[in-house]
Amino acid sequence: MNDKVNADWIAVDWGTSNLRAWAMSSSGTVLAAATSDQGMGRLDRAGFEPALMATIGDWVSGPTIVIACGMVGSRQGWVEAPYATTPCPAMSETLVQAPTRNPDLSVHVIPGIKQVKPADVMRGEETQIAGFLARNPNWDGILCLPGTHTKWVHVSAGEVVSFQTFMTGELFATLTDHTVLRHSVAADGWDDTAFADGLSDAMGRPEKLAARLFSLRAEGLLHGLSGAAARARLSGLLIGAELAAAKPYWLGQQIAVIGAGGLAKTYVDALAAQSAPAMQVQGEAITIAGLTAAYRRLKG
Amino acid sequence: MNDKVNADWIAVDWGTSNLRAWAMSSSGTVLAAATSDQGMGRLDRAGFEPALMATIGDWVSGPTIVIACGMVGSRQGWVEAPYATTPCPAMSETLVQAPTRNPDLSVHVIPGIKQVKPADVMRGEETQIAGFLARNPNWDGILCLPGTHTKWVHVSAGEVVSFQTFMTGELFATLTDHTVLRHSVAADGWDDTAFADGLSDAMGRPEKLAARLFSLRAEGLLHGLSGAAARARLSGLLIGAELAAAKPYWLGQQIAVIGAGGLAKTYVDALAAQSAPAMQVQGEAITIAGLTAAYRRLKG
Repeated sequence: MNDKVNADWIAVDWGTSNLRAWAMSSSGTVLAAATSDQGMGRLDRAGFEPALMATIGDWVSGPTIVIACGMVGSRQGWVEAPYATTPCPAMSETLVQAPTRNPDLSVHVIPGIKQVKPADVMRGEETQIAGFLARNPNWDGILCLPGTHTKWVHVSAGEVVSFQTFMTGELFATLTDHTVLRHSVAADGWDDTAFADGLSDAMGRPEKLAARLFSLRAEGLLHGLSGAAARARLSGLLIGAELAAAKPYWLGQQIAVIGAGGLAKTYVDALAAQSAPAMQVQGEAITIAGLTAAYRRLKG
Repeated sequence: MNDKVNADWIAVDWGTSNLRAWAMSSSGTVLAAATSDQGMGRLDRAGFEPALMATIGDWVSGPTIVIACGMVGSRQGWVEAPYATTPCPAMSETLVQAPTRNPDLSVHVIPGIKQVKPADVMRGEETQIAGFLARNPNWDGILCLPGTHTKWVHVSAGEVVSFQTFMTGELFATLTDHTVLRHSVAADGWDDTAFADGLSDAMGRPEKLAARLFSLRAEGLLHGLSGAAARARLSGLLIGAELAAAKPYWLGQQIAVIGAGGLAKTYVDALAAQSAPAMQVQGEAITIAGLTAAYRRLKG
């Protein structure tokens, strides 16, 4: 078991599928970390407090402030934290307190951001954006946050000006899990050339995407396309289609891609192939920086 | 129970999900019909004959010829019927006989068609194409066969010249069943205006498709887009993307859309909106016509 941790406050990133928590010192140092599979999607309203205590209970002794971001603040979450509306600061002035049975727990939820037209929403990414801006004040440009629902965000003068969501990650997962392509696309493995081919094909002729998907199956049946190459080519096709549609965001702009390891690196490489250099920023540290910025504002 | 049927031969369309069979007279009249959920996807090699007999057993007395098309002839089917290669006649000269334990059963499987480049395959549609050509000799133009995997086929001088498969139907199903869009897209319902909007958006700016999908979710959350309208708009977006990619097939050509009711009608309407008139042909009758053509060739 861990040694006893005396947290000054607790940072929480609570998404649809997972809950990640960090015991924090008042100066913003991470003292301990914990994760749980009790995502928002598995909980009803009464289930949030027990799920949180099961994850962070060891860190709580006496009155404790919890700062949380993500789907925990959605209508189906612990408490609804109404969206701020673009253009707006990444970090809302107003946190929303969640009801608790334990009087020592003081849980504050960070609102998401909405865009009226084109309609779009985010919950959780606003905290990463705030964390990025806390570390890079006066930064002006485009943030790309790859994931299940990848966000492209235009940031200027400390505000979120506009953003656009792409279902690329979820499309990749559902195509490989639930369609005929599951017979042709391997669960892992990679092929750089196949990725580059898919990317260049989708960037050059994005209107052909719908025609390319079944060809992965047919190439496997007729020409022995390997599962790893099919996987990389599918990724290239989908990310290429995203980059083609997101071009008004990234063309000629300063770009930072936020995320750990593989997927974010894939976006950086894909952008580089379009002569659009991007820096990669570690996602977890940025999330914690955003939650810390919210904590500091709360403490005044 | 049905009255006793004395079939001269039996026509079978045996796909991944279903088995459909018709008791036929030697002149090509349908005497009875039966369906089963024992599709190829649920059967191992030894399971095909029992599944067939469970469906058509009442029609069999003495030696009986069965003509079958579809995935029953795939590598995972009853017997592999190797693909013919484009350009080729829709109806192969060579049927492949499946092994049977019952010596009265004589089962002949129609081969599919492959295209080497761009790689593509069909099994089952070749029989519909042959049926269409049996009823419309000398027809020259484009056949569209909507379904889980929609096929666009260039037919000329009685041959399949080239074809292309689109996963549009499967994409629609998996997006509405397995992604975040399941919260926003109704299981049924329709909205003609929303379909037309999606179609026109995807046709006009097909490179933006990847950006449009999540907006269905966001429009539902922020602006109350109804589930029926989201369903119609998603269909319009996906069929629009397909029509944009398939334009080299249908532009300026004579077009026939093969299929029953709703989906085929949707394609006809979508093509009409692009000033591309298409005739609609009932699918089941065409399948039976193709199986009948194969029977007649077998009987010489």
